[in-house]
Amino acid sequence: MFLKWPKKVHIKEVGPRDGLQNEDKILSSDVKAEWINRLSEAGLVSIEVSSFVNPKWIPQLADAEEVFSKIHRKEGVKYAALVPNLRGLERALKADVGEVCLFMSASETHNQKNINKSISETFPVLEEVVAEAKSAGKTVRGYVSTVIACPYEGEIPVSQVKRVVDRLLEMGVDEISLGDTIGVGVPSQVEALLSELLKSYKADQFAMHFHDTRGTALANVLISLQMGITTFDSSLGGLGGCPYAEGATGNVATEDLLYMLTGMGIETGIDRNRLLQAAHFIEEKLEKPLSSKQMELARRTRKE
Amino acid sequence: MFLKWPKKVHIKEVGPRDGLQNEDKILSSDVKAEWINRLSEAGLVSIEVSSFVNPKWIPQLADAEEVFSKIHRKEGVKYAALVPNLRGLERALKADVGEVCLFMSASETHNQKNINKSISETFPVLEEVVAEAKSAGKTVRGYVSTVIACPYEGEIPVSQVKRVVDRLLEMGVDEISLGDTIGVGVPSQVEALLSELLKSYKADQFAMHFHDTRGTALANVLISLQMGITTFDSSLGGLGGCPYAEGATGNVATEDLLYMLTGMGIETGIDRNRLLQAAHFIEEKLEKPLSSKQMELARRTRKE
Repeated sequence: MFLKWPKKVHIKEVGPRDGLQNEDKILSSDVKAEWINRLSEAGLVSIEVSSFVNPKWIPQLADAEEVFSKIHRKEGVKYAALVPNLRGLERALKADVGEVCLFMSASETHNQKNINKSISETFPVLEEVVAEAKSAGKTVRGYVSTVIACPYEGEIPVSQVKRVVDRLLEMGVDEISLGDTIGVGVPSQVEALLSELLKSYKADQFAMHFHDTRGTALANVLISLQMGITTFDSSLGGLGGCPYAEGATGNVATEDLLYMLTGMGIETGIDRNRLLQAAHFIEEKLEKPLSSKQMELARRTRKE
Repeated sequence: MFLKWPKKVHIKEVGPRDGLQNEDKILSSDVKAEWINRLSEAGLVSIEVSSFVNPKWIPQLADAEEVFSKIHRKEGVKYAALVPNLRGLERALKADVGEVCLFMSASETHNQKNINKSISETFPVLEEVVAEAKSAGKTVRGYVSTVIACPYEGEIPVSQVKRVVDRLLEMGVDEISLGDTIGVGVPSQVEALLSELLKSYKADQFAMHFHDTRGTALANVLISLQMGITTFDSSLGGLGGCPYAEGATGNVATEDLLYMLTGMGIETGIDRNRLLQAAHFIEEKLEKPLSSKQMELARRTRKE
């Protein structure tokens, strides 16, 4: 073969957090816990369960504690949650999260709109959280959003992303998830970004987080694989979006990502049938058709 | 940059044929001609106008002659048509087609279902057409479908595709369009197929024809670009499917392909705004929402 592919890829499921926070319908904590249990049973070993931001901001995820108390904790599975500050961390630690996820933006304006602080003001807040989370023995993940472009500022220079990545890694963040939040990226941009970052860091310090707004997500995954990346965020059914980014659609769908990776002989540890059952489950609960290609195909095949 | 991309890519629009033949609604030849004129005005220089198969088989395209007589022939644009046999070629030459497109399948069963002949029985029929078309001064394109997998036979060995490609090129076919008819392919399969073919042939003898049934079309385009391919078939709005392949959806959408290529700095000569206007035009005429990401985005943005 001309090109080399990794043997194994790690898929991190963000649907219960990134997906549900963008749905109008608010699900009960029982339904969420059952969905998360189905995800872990399907073989996902990293699941972002909820968010410990102020419940006022994201009412869909106001029940983070209840969900954490209700899930069945399967051995070997990391149950992560979003944490904005020390107050959030306190709640998250009480709920016994498996991983603490911080978030900020590479775009000054998006950061301001999303978390109401400048980038410089955000760093010290996160620094405290990292230190506390680490001393509590937790691994810390840092989401950097709008790494390709921002709905307000347009294209984001690689240097601006690097500045944020540098600081987060300095603080002791274990893994950075680089987000094309509005799904505008094309492979050459992903390549340019990763080329630069991989001059200073190792590929396994990064995960890629693509939204599929313009259909380029799997192409972007492909080039990331070629650059050595082996961790990808996705959301079952392609759920998700961005409340502060007009027209943004969901994350790349876990089942579509799985289809491509499996077809390429790359292991993920995920059972496709169980994963699709988990997708049908949440589709029924949300009472709306999921937009992934795999789910569209299932609907079309049933009709024929 | 780590990887090299071509400077220019040639997009061949197959919507008026591959797209419309799969629509229930039959459009008038005036509407078709106007659509084709809008496509050429948008900068497309290869447009597959219609098909000269027996009108009984594909009533949607029964008016091939009228459409050819009604289009405004823009200089520099190649107006192609599907031709199954000498009878079809006679009609096509009378209509003054710019390029003759043959078709057959790499899968024995799909070939049988689609054109009612075995692969071996198909070759001599096409051979006659190539000879006649060539002596009439026409270039000839050969579609080979199900090059990755077939809905009846499953995965198709590369050697089986090569056998068909060998014979078509021997006959004097100028370009082969390799079709993942049911949209099951993943990049490693495309890579394996092209690696083998490019041992014997040049990249510019091939075009890739991807359907986006499982969301992998643009990833497959990406790997094809890396293998040196610079011609791609697509269909405006992602129209299309396959009448003999259950669950197959449309071709990769021209506007989605254009988005990725343009973003990567690759020239296509296509004007995005005019292209989207042509998409809105046909969407209105077909009275159904087009499924491309670009058109979905346009609808969503209008609503917000």
